[in-house]
Amino acid sequence: MNARRVDLNSDLGESFGRWVLGDDDAMLELVTSANVACGFHAGDPSTLRQVCARAAARGVSVGAQVSYRDLAGFGRRTMDVEPSELTDEVIYQIGALDGIARVCGTRVRYVKPHGALYNKAAVDPHTAGAVVAAVQAYDASLPVLGLPGSELLSAAAAAGLRTMAEAFADRAYTAAGLLVSRREPGAVLHDPQEIAARCVRLVTEGVIVAVDGSAVSVPAASICVHGDTAGAVEIAQAVRRALDAAGVEVRPFAS
Amino acid sequence: MNARRVDLNSDLGESFGRWVLGDDDAMLELVTSANVACGFHAGDPSTLRQVCARAAARGVSVGAQVSYRDLAGFGRRTMDVEPSELTDEVIYQIGALDGIARVCGTRVRYVKPHGALYNKAAVDPHTAGAVVAAVQAYDASLPVLGLPGSELLSAAAAAGLRTMAEAFADRAYTAAGLLVSRREPGAVLHDPQEIAARCVRLVTEGVIVAVDGSAVSVPAASICVHGDTAGAVEIAQAVRRALDAAGVEVRPFAS
Amino acid sequence: MNARRVDLNSDLGESFGRWVLGDDDAMLELVTSANVACGFHAGDPSTLRQVCARAAARGVSVGAQVSYRDLAGFGRRTMDVEPSELTDEVIYQIGALDGIARVCGTRVRYVKPHGALYNKAAVDPHTAGAVVAAVQAYDASLPVLGLPGSELLSAAAAAGLRTMAEAFADRAYTAAGLLVSRREPGAVLHDPQEIAARCVRLVTEGVIVAVDGSAVSVPAASICVHGDTAGAVEIAQAVRRALDAAGVEVRPFAS
Amino acid sequence: MNARRVDLNSDLGESFGRWVLGDDDAMLELVTSANVACGFHAGDPSTLRQVCARAAARGVSVGAQVSYRDLAGFGRRTMDVEPSELTDEVIYQIGALDGIARVCGTRVRYVKPHGALYNKAAVDPHTAGAVVAAVQAYDASLPVLGLPGSELLSAAAAAGLRTMAEAFADRAYTAAGLLVSRREPGAVLHDPQEIAARCVRLVTEGVIVAVDGSAVSVPAASICVHGDTAGAVEIAQAVRRALDAAGVEVRPFAS
Repeated sequence: MNARRVDLNSDLGESFGRWVLGDDDAMLELVTSANVACGFHAGDPSTLRQVCARAAARGVSVGAQVSYRDLAGFGRRTMDVEPSELTDEVIYQIGALDGIARVCGTRVRYVKPHGALYNKAAVDPHTAGAVVAAVQAYDASLPVLGLPGSELLSAAAAAGLRTMAEAFADRAYTAAGLLVSRREPGAVLHDPQEIAARCVRLVTEGVIVAVDGSAVSVPAASICVHGDTAGAVEIAQAVRRALDAAGVEVRPFAS
Repeated sequence: MNARRVDLNSDLGESFGRWVLGDDDAMLELVTSANVACGFHAGDPSTLRQVCARAAARGVSVGAQVSYRDLAGFGRRTMDVEPSELTDEVIYQIGALDGIARVCGTRVRYVKPHGALYNKAAVDPHTAGAVVAAVQAYDASLPVLGLPGSELLSAAAAAGLRTMAEAFADRAYTAAGLLVSRREPGAVLHDPQEIAARCVRLVTEGVIVAVDGSAVSVPAASICVHGDTAGAVEIAQAVRRALDAAGVEVRPFAS
Repeated sequence: MNARRVDLNSDLGESFGRWVLGDDDAMLELVTSANVACGFHAGDPSTLRQVCARAAARGVSVGAQVSYRDLAGFGRRTMDVEPSELTDEVIYQIGALDGIARVCGTRVRYVKPHGALYNKAAVDPHTAGAVVAAVQAYDASLPVLGLPGSELLSAAAAAGLRTMAEAFADRAYTAAGLLVSRREPGAVLHDPQEIAARCVRLVTEGVIVAVDGSAVSVPAASICVHGDTAGAVEIAQAVRRALDAAGVEVRPFAS
Repeated sequence: MNARRVDLNSDLGESFGRWVLGDDDAMLELVTSANVACGFHAGDPSTLRQVCARAAARGVSVGAQVSYRDLAGFGRRTMDVEPSELTDEVIYQIGALDGIARVCGTRVRYVKPHGALYNKAAVDPHTAGAVVAAVQAYDASLPVLGLPGSELLSAAAAAGLRTMAEAFADRAYTAAGLLVSRREPGAVLHDPQEIAARCVRLVTEGVIVAVDGSAVSVPAASICVHGDTAGAVEIAQAVRRALDAAGVEVRPFAS
């Protein structure tokens, strides 16, 4: 076996006041990078502090999961925000989370856009540029985590930022190495063991089995496991155990 | 003349999106400390960035004007927030503004609560303690600006933080050195020359003329001039000119 | 047996966007009055519409569960809102929910304040008066649901509004007929059968057993069962079944 | 002269808490229809009540100026909202304003989308359909005010709603009768007398002079005058006076 290493990341800190989402504590036992909400789509300050404190205690890296300002839509609705304004909003969010992280004895270690901003920044150079400009201005040593081949990672690389490509544990891929659209049947996998086996092969062989059965090469410094879906913890556990069993070193890409 | 020095502070960055409040540019020519809103009662990220950039360019110190989370009420309504939650909200706000300040080449230099939080923290030890806990956790070198004799400054001092007392340029004082309640007639002064003269005497002699005509001693490392009232800029100009003319050195208490 | 009738009410529609709270569908099978959130502490428009549509289909009365404007605090933090402003905020909320109810073939049938507003209006005449002024202005035929002996019901009665007293299924009472403070041990009951038996006795005999073992008279046109706590549905089911079995007619007080 | 009649509409009620926008009182002396904000892009309940009360007293019709949920962007940013969710949000807003209007002795008389929603509904059938579905469900007797030839008015007409076309007093038109894009020089007119003369000709002759000098036919049951720009009141006064002087009857299209 060609043992390698990988990071496991998950969206955490997405509760808000009375509303609890996901099982942050359970996920923090399994992942090595926590994409922590920054208050614009989710995440009140006390939730952020609890997640950061526990992440710090467990050696999990904290990333700023920056978003459009849209609590009602959970950041899942594309918004036509002026790039310069978006840059400022992203800086504000990174700073806010970094302040929380700081009092917990850690710091923001990377940036990953959330939801609609993630999707828009993957394909729209203006949006990608606005996010990158924020990271560069705030701290040019922070890596950006995103989709391989995305405008976001291209813009980040062009700006001299470190880029980290991620794969999705529970998503089907096309033979071209792209994500199968969620609108297609079979786009999302649900079987923990199958998902875990795919992750192991991805890390050890660098390939993932596409929907047509071919093995496609997918670069991934990190694997994203969901934290708020049904069976999320079970899937994450299966992935983590399988990686550990395969001798894969699971550790943060940034710390 | 017993020339001395003083700081002039004002609440700035209190626009929000389409809504403009006050004339930040004009005030930044006159004051030496800018209490910049942090987004909870006012202040969108682009507004904050503009204020911080200009403050940095002018050598004006940036302070975090932290508030209850209440855009609709402009932070002027007391809210019964749990102290631990309030602490986290204050950390979040300081961090957010500090992130913006950082990309503008400066940093948050002090903390001053806004509106209802200012008033509550002046008299309620739990609220004062919650604010102080946030400052201490975020950066124990940041001074706290507030009312002399307030619970806030007491708690800050007890926690080993640096405290800065402020006087209000346009407010009447009782013979005991307290602010006359706004509900009383004559509580707020409007004549720029009278206000300016009071400020000069406050700095050079350490006293202010109370409503009963007596001269009362008021400690003040900083004088607060309002930025969003009618005639605000004119009053601030009169104060600044009079201080300059009296040979008072007007400079930030923190930089 | 002295069979009587009663209404069962519960707080519903308290999800917000991505965040789901409680099991509205299950509760709507059991209660006869739905205190539907109005968007200020919880409740996005689509959630409200789903609840109202199902309530209308089931013959459950819709009430406006009006609140302070505080999503982050779920309306549980007292806010020092000017009475006239509070009145306008309550009117806005009743109107918004009534608009949603209208398209679902029903209307708002009563008003019940939520959380901190409920508690404040129970003891503060200004707050009670502000809520009552809103109901009176909007539709003076709407009854107000609240705590017996509260300032809210007093003010409502004084204004000529219909008042409805409610009891709490899962709360302990003092010998004086008041709720035991939540800070006291035993303030909240958890055993479904015990709670159900108390409700039956309350309706059929008009009394509830207090913490000292005495039977205290408690007026209650409606019994409030919680919808968002652990075991909420199970408790509500037990209460409903016990009332049905006791021959109590469970039906809306307003329709 | 071929004297006719017309309605004058303006966006009002767009203050929010501490932030004041425009001079509602002055504009209510001049217009006959008030597009009142509904709280999603602007407009706190007390502001809405003041505008509605004064509108009712002056015989000015109240319209619901519905918007995307975006206070920070003042509803000027297109949001990718699901049509069914948008429908529910529009119903909520109409209901809320109608509740306020009701206590002021009037009611919502028409609906006009605001900002980005206006622009999107003009060209996107899904958005237009979502808004129309809301009006139809809430009260199918309410007319929809919008751009002639827009998807919004087409969808409204197809649904059997009454449609009202509006022209813009201070905007340049192409020879095809379309608005000149704001990005073009000369898109917005500033001279009150010129604007007033154009309005008179529009009403009495049905034509407006396009940027190429040709006279183009523009249908308009109502003319929109802006309420929040520099010189807004002066322009509105000039328009109203010129219409009155020309014998044009200025009155609400809906009352």
